[in-house]
Amino acid sequence: MRFMVARDGQDTALYVVEGEDAYRVTGRGGMDGTDLYGTIAGGPAQTAAAVEAAKSGAPVPAASLSPALPFNRFGKILCLGLNYVDHVKEGGYEIPSYPAMFIRVPSSMMAAGAPMIKPDCSDRLDYEVELMVIIGRGGRHIREEDALGHVFGYTVFNDGSVRDYQRKTHQWTPGKNFDATGSLGPIIVTPDELPAGAAGLKIQSRLNGQVMQDANTSDMMWPVAKTIATVSEFMTLEPGDLIAMGTPPGVGHARTPPVFMFPGDVVEVEIENICTCSNPVVSEADAAKNEAAA
Amino acid sequence: MRFMVARDGQDTALYVVEGEDAYRVTGRGGMDGTDLYGTIAGGPAQTAAAVEAAKSGAPVPAASLSPALPFNRFGKILCLGLNYVDHVKEGGYEIPSYPAMFIRVPSSMMAAGAPMIKPDCSDRLDYEVELMVIIGRGGRHIREEDALGHVFGYTVFNDGSVRDYQRKTHQWTPGKNFDATGSLGPIIVTPDELPAGAAGLKIQSRLNGQVMQDANTSDMMWPVAKTIATVSEFMTLEPGDLIAMGTPPGVGHARTPPVFMFPGDVVEVEIENICTCSNPVVSEADAAKNEAAA
Repeated sequence: MRFMVARDGQDTALYVVEGEDAYRVTGRGGMDGTDLYGTIAGGPAQTAAAVEAAKSGAPVPAASLSPALPFNRFGKILCLGLNYVDHVKEGGYEIPSYPAMFIRVPSSMMAAGAPMIKPDCSDRLDYEVELMVIIGRGGRHIREEDALGHVFGYTVFNDGSVRDYQRKTHQWTPGKNFDATGSLGPIIVTPDELPAGAAGLKIQSRLNGQVMQDANTSDMMWPVAKTIATVSEFMTLEPGDLIAMGTPPGVGHARTPPVFMFPGDVVEVEIENICTCSNPVVSEADAAKNEAAA
Repeated sequence: MRFMVARDGQDTALYVVEGEDAYRVTGRGGMDGTDLYGTIAGGPAQTAAAVEAAKSGAPVPAASLSPALPFNRFGKILCLGLNYVDHVKEGGYEIPSYPAMFIRVPSSMMAAGAPMIKPDCSDRLDYEVELMVIIGRGGRHIREEDALGHVFGYTVFNDGSVRDYQRKTHQWTPGKNFDATGSLGPIIVTPDELPAGAAGLKIQSRLNGQVMQDANTSDMMWPVAKTIATVSEFMTLEPGDLIAMGTPPGVGHARTPPVFMFPGDVVEVEIENICTCSNPVVSEADAAKNEAAA
C-alpha cells in the first residue's frame, strides 16, 4: 500500500494512493486518526480493513492534495551519517566500523512541497537524499533476522544540512537541525511493495533539474535490518520512530567547486518505486511572510 | 516557586513545594494538566493564581510523594557536551569556540528516584551532573540580553553516559541515549529564587556517598543566556524544551583508575538551592523485573 497524509483545503487526513487516485482513509473503517499513527497502531489487519473501507468511497486526484507531514507529532528521528562508502570518502572521513548517528528534532522537519528555509546566517545549505525507515512495531534488542518485521514502511528524506554549522564542532547537531530543512514524504510505501529492506532501488537528488546524487540503496554499508538491530541495542524503538539511512556521494559541499542551495532553487530527492520529494528553497524573510499569510 | 511532578499512589499531579510541604496544583485554580506543561503554557499570572489556590488546600509531606518526570511528553532535549574548561581537558578535547551539542531522546530519560539501567553490553556507565534549563517562552533568534526572560525554571540532570558507545564514532548519540540513563528532577525552581542564569551555585555528584564532581555553575564557558542565544540562532525553541548545560570535571572515565557504575550503586547529583537527584543503578534484567511488577 502507498499512504499519504495530505491536506484537502484546511482538512488534513490520511489517504491511500493507487495510481493517480487518492482514497480518504481517515473517518472510514474505524480509522479516526488524521496521520499515520492510527494506521501503525491499529496493526496490519485493522489497516487492511480501513483501506478496504476507504476504497468503497470516491477517490480524489492525488495531485489535487497538498502533502502534509506523515505525523502530527514526531517520535524519535534518528539519522545515520556515513552509510555509503563513497560519501564517507568525499567528506574526508575514515571508513567507520560502527554507524555515525545523530538526531533531528521535529522543528527541523517539513513536508514535501513545503519551503526549505535557507538561514540568513549561512550560505552553505546542502541537500542529501536518503531512504527513511518508519518503524511499525517497537522493541529493544531486535535481532537482525527479525528486524524487517518491525518496519511499517519506507519514504524519501532530504536531510538538508547547513555545512558550516555542522562542522562548528565535532558534533553535527546544529547543522542538522535548522528549522525547516529536513523534508519528508510524501508517499509512505509498505514493505510488501518493495524488495526486502528497500534494497536495490535507484536513489537520486536533483537541484534545479540537474542530477547531483545518483546511486543505489544496495550501496549502504549498514542495510536496514542491521541498522535496526544496531540501534535497538541501545534504545527502545517505538511505533512511528524514524531512521534515516544516510546519503550517497554527490553532496554539494564535496563538489569542485562546491554547490549550495539558495532562494529560488528547487531541490528534488527520489527513490525508485517510493516517491519524489520536491521543495522550493526560500529565504527566512520569505518563509516568515508565507507563514503570516497562511 | 519550587514545583514537583509526583505520584501519590497511582495518581500523578503537579505540586508546589514549600519546605517539607507539597501542595497539589493539578485540579485547582483552573490548572488541569498533570505535568509542567499546563503551568508553562498558562504563563506567570495563571501560574501564580493556581499556586495561590493550591495553597488553600491541605499539604502532604513532600517526602511521601514519588517523583515523576516533569513532562508527560518531552519536547526537545538539547545537551551541551563540553562546557566546563577542566572537563574539556580531562576528556582530551581542544577548548572549543562553539558549544558541542547533542540530543537525547525521551526514552533515555527517567525521574529522580527511578532506576538508572546499566546496559548488559557495556561496563562503562558514567555519571555527569548538569544544570538543566527549562524553556518557558519559545522563540527564534533570541538575543542574549533577552534570553533569561525565556526560562521557566531550572532543575538538576544526571547525563548518564555509556562511554564506549559514546566514542564508537565521533558522534556521541548512542552513548548518550541508552534507555533510562538520563535522570531529571525532582524539583523545578523558578528563576526568581536563584541568581541570574543560575550562576554561582555549587554543583556536585556523589557515587555511593563519595564526592566525584565538585564545582560551581559559574565555571561554565557558555552561560545560560549565551547558550539560549546560540541555540535559537538555528532552531526555534518551544515551551518545555530542555537544555542541559554540560558537566564539570571529575567524571568516572577520566579518573585514574577509571570509575564506572554498576548494579547496587547509588548516584546522586545536586545543585545548591535547586535539589538533589538520586538514582539506584540496576541491571537490565532487574529493571525488566521491576517493570513487570509495577
